[in-house]
Amino acid sequence: MDRIPILKMGDVLLVTIQVDMHDRLALTLQDDLTAMIVAHHARGVLIDISSLEMVDSFIGRMLTSIAGMSRLLDAETVVVGMQPSVAITLVELGLKIEGIRTALDVEKGMAALNDAVDHAGPDSDGDRNASN
Amino acid sequence: MDRIPILKMGDVLLVTIQVDMHDRLALTLQDDLTAMIVAHHARGVLIDISSLEMVDSFIGRMLTSIAGMSRLLDAETVVVGMQPSVAITLVELGLKIEGIRTALDVEKGMAALNDAVDHAGPDSDGDRNASN
Repeated sequence: MDRIPILKMGDVLLVTIQVDMHDRLALTLQDDLTAMIVAHHARGVLIDISSLEMVDSFIGRMLTSIAGMSRLLDAETVVVGMQPSVAITLVELGLKIEGIRTALDVEKGMAALNDAVDHAGPDSDGDRNASN
Repeated sequence: MDRIPILKMGDVLLVTIQVDMHDRLALTLQDDLTAMIVAHHARGVLIDISSLEMVDSFIGRMLTSIAGMSRLLDAETVVVGMQPSVAITLVELGLKIEGIRTALDVEKGMAALNDAVDHAGPDSDGDRNASN
């Protein structure tokens, strides 16, 4: 397993994390994902973690970095499919996944992304109040 | 890795195969997939194999069975993302993946599915000529 496949669906990229992440795999994912955001002008990234039974601080940091990089490239990140036990563990351990939206499943995540992209729309550079 | 996640997107189910398949995992996937087709009235199944560098007869049979089962449950199967080397090997070894459409990527696969579903539409039981 050298790399995690990234699927393009419209202007959203979908990543399903199924395997244990290790350093190199995480780095490759970051490289591939940022390259694809730029190449395809993606506006959103959906990361499905439904098959993860555990999210430790390494995965947490990886998700946070991906979201940070994507945001710099003007793409929103939504993490979908978190198992209830993962949510419990994250809170109990006090692990923070900062700057990341979550949604229950891919469809809701896609809706959240479309929402975010719509609102950020043409006037996204701080003059959003003007149009409201 | 106990099971491969199945993502629901509208009336299409998306499966990304990233790990080495073994007997039990393949059986679990068949069970989960057929259950989800029935539960969500799915009309199509997309199987992404872009991270597979090799498709042997075991995977070939698994894909064929999944397509057969899905068809019985009134869902079309499209395999997407096959690597060129996999296509070469399949032909050179004479392995047949029967009854399965292929498409280059998820978007094209989704289009092929919509196409198939549209054509099968409301009058799918053999009287299609009547409407043409």
